[in-house]
Amino acid sequence: MSKIMWSYRTPGIPDEFFITGEGVPGPTKEEIRTLTISKARLRKDAYVIDVGCGVGSLTVEAALQVGAEGRVFAIDEDEEAVKLTKANLAKFGVQNIVQVIRGKAPEAMLELPLVDAVIIGGSASLKDVIKVSHEKVKEKGRIVVNAIMLETCHEALQEIKRLNFREIDVTTVFVAKGKWVDAGVMMIARNPITIISATKV
Amino acid sequence: MSKIMWSYRTPGIPDEFFITGEGVPGPTKEEIRTLTISKARLRKDAYVIDVGCGVGSLTVEAALQVGAEGRVFAIDEDEEAVKLTKANLAKFGVQNIVQVIRGKAPEAMLELPLVDAVIIGGSASLKDVIKVSHEKVKEKGRIVVNAIMLETCHEALQEIKRLNFREIDVTTVFVAKGKWVDAGVMMIARNPITIISATKV
Amino acid sequence: MSKIMWSYRTPGIPDEFFITGEGVPGPTKEEIRTLTISKARLRKDAYVIDVGCGVGSLTVEAALQVGAEGRVFAIDEDEEAVKLTKANLAKFGVQNIVQVIRGKAPEAMLELPLVDAVIIGGSASLKDVIKVSHEKVKEKGRIVVNAIMLETCHEALQEIKRLNFREIDVTTVFVAKGKWVDAGVMMIARNPITIISATKV
Amino acid sequence: MSKIMWSYRTPGIPDEFFITGEGVPGPTKEEIRTLTISKARLRKDAYVIDVGCGVGSLTVEAALQVGAEGRVFAIDEDEEAVKLTKANLAKFGVQNIVQVIRGKAPEAMLELPLVDAVIIGGSASLKDVIKVSHEKVKEKGRIVVNAIMLETCHEALQEIKRLNFREIDVTTVFVAKGKWVDAGVMMIARNPITIISATKV
Repeated sequence: MSKIMWSYRTPGIPDEFFITGEGVPGPTKEEIRTLTISKARLRKDAYVIDVGCGVGSLTVEAALQVGAEGRVFAIDEDEEAVKLTKANLAKFGVQNIVQVIRGKAPEAMLELPLVDAVIIGGSASLKDVIKVSHEKVKEKGRIVVNAIMLETCHEALQEIKRLNFREIDVTTVFVAKGKWVDAGVMMIARNPITIISATKV
Repeated sequence: MSKIMWSYRTPGIPDEFFITGEGVPGPTKEEIRTLTISKARLRKDAYVIDVGCGVGSLTVEAALQVGAEGRVFAIDEDEEAVKLTKANLAKFGVQNIVQVIRGKAPEAMLELPLVDAVIIGGSASLKDVIKVSHEKVKEKGRIVVNAIMLETCHEALQEIKRLNFREIDVTTVFVAKGKWVDAGVMMIARNPITIISATKV
Repeated sequence: MSKIMWSYRTPGIPDEFFITGEGVPGPTKEEIRTLTISKARLRKDAYVIDVGCGVGSLTVEAALQVGAEGRVFAIDEDEEAVKLTKANLAKFGVQNIVQVIRGKAPEAMLELPLVDAVIIGGSASLKDVIKVSHEKVKEKGRIVVNAIMLETCHEALQEIKRLNFREIDVTTVFVAKGKWVDAGVMMIARNPITIISATKV
Repeated sequence: MSKIMWSYRTPGIPDEFFITGEGVPGPTKEEIRTLTISKARLRKDAYVIDVGCGVGSLTVEAALQVGAEGRVFAIDEDEEAVKLTKANLAKFGVQNIVQVIRGKAPEAMLELPLVDAVIIGGSASLKDVIKVSHEKVKEKGRIVVNAIMLETCHEALQEIKRLNFREIDVTTVFVAKGKWVDAGVMMIARNPITIISATKV
């Protein structure tokens, strides 16, 4: 596997740079990934948990942001997802910054240290994951939930409000990408995503 | 003026952190700013030109990305814009990284050094600005145009194609933000923006 | 008040044709109005209830669709809304087709006859309104809810599912309108709306 | 082929009701179809040209609006499109209202009578089609262009302006549809479309 140097400081790796696999969701599309990482407000040495890491695209971006002094814990219960995430970490040279955990959230989060941010791409136990995230996030730390379903959006918002997170931000993003066809540029839509983020007080 | 420490490595400063003024456009809204900066693919020591800097929100974000080893040239022909940009640079502690130039683009770009990226928020002479950008951007450097008008979008795309930029990306972004009202969260739309970015070969 | 002849058969009266008033929501924007009326699937002689009629824009469009053989019941608890609705009915010459009721929904719905469609633009008692709508709608009749808040969207969907409506359709619509400015056409966003519609079995 | 009774007066036939075929574009998605028909502002007895009719979904909706006293001319140069359009006309019982013409636009438009509206779903010769539309549309008649490409959007707008159409309306529509999956309702995006409509003076 050849190593691609993604030496840019800004998030936003093109989607096709990630190794993918059938049956594993991801990568999180470039623009949504960039905004998700942005909402996590990562410092150079931050600790981050990525819940439901899929192929590891958010994990890689988070690792590039937090750097060698930081740490990312990537959790997925799917064996193939764990494998693909590890492959992508190697591809982007950030394997030393990340610990990949095969397990179910929130159980797999319990033994992790306190972190600066939890990013929740997806989980079957969203409510419990948010509850444990609240415990695991340091004061002024961030939680970021990406919702592609109406129910997830609603449930995340209710739980985040209930736990007294502050600075709650709800951002729905609709992206269309130009595709070059014979006659010109056709706009192809991406599914809308609602990014819910908040700060722990 | 008190200095706010925005010590996060990720772009995405909340809009209300910027000093604004009547008659000067900006700040570029958080999500669009984040994506624009992302598309510019900035390195730690990059040189950047921000054409039509308005209140300087993209300038500040670019400066935070390129850091002390980099350099940002912010151009605006409006006196008030120059003043506000300087105020925001001071607020975010990046005044040493940025040179604010009061002048018209593309003329004001001519004496600048080669750069890694040109960000074009707006300009009355878009076509000429893109042409000069092509000259000013290093090989593998980036151009990013934010278009809020159909004509700008079309003109930018045609000119970027004509100049043989590569990896041309057209991304239309529609954002809605949750606003807390009595009965719940109401989604308030932001105007859609098309971000056109490309790499010089 | 001069009468405007809107003799077109298709819904979609331009927004500025409606008489409006401060403090009364509406008109429902043209495109959303057109789609809402479309989702109600009105016949020439249909009976319709419009809950929370505001200035009466959906009421007018529904009346134009159902014609002299149909009937529209427009409900709003606000006195000014009732007045504006009546003014718009007169303006479009459909006052004989519509009964405007000042009252709270769902209470005000109880004495109405069975109808072919209920359109719910807004209500403080959404859940109860949907419940009574289920009783008031004939078999194969339609319910259409316009949600601008995340909570409304969620609550409407849950209640509609619970009541065993069929053919449930969830459509989120993001519209941007071209505005002519000096330099060209700028796209101005409208707030996104989710239209939930379904058929009673 | 069994006949489906679509007896509703409002446009908005569900997509799956149309007979489709590989290689022929369409049906125009329900919401876009409804809005397109709405922008054409059809009267009960209107004459309409549908350029690039594909499977005939806009043709059917237009025919249902104009009724037996009106007339729709559906043009497509593809043999299969003509066949599918005829099949859909039969399915919806509007074959007597529509004349399907196999041919290229604008040439195929030249011998048609004056009409109240021209709907342009797609054409290789957009500019010329708009020019001939201007000749074929009666005073106060309407032109409606659906653009899925940036170039089409730009070209249509320029030509419509040049020909002094009035009340030019540019509406970009982004639609997402709820899809029922195990865990709830996922929002699936449709490609954005820009509908440009105007009135001939």
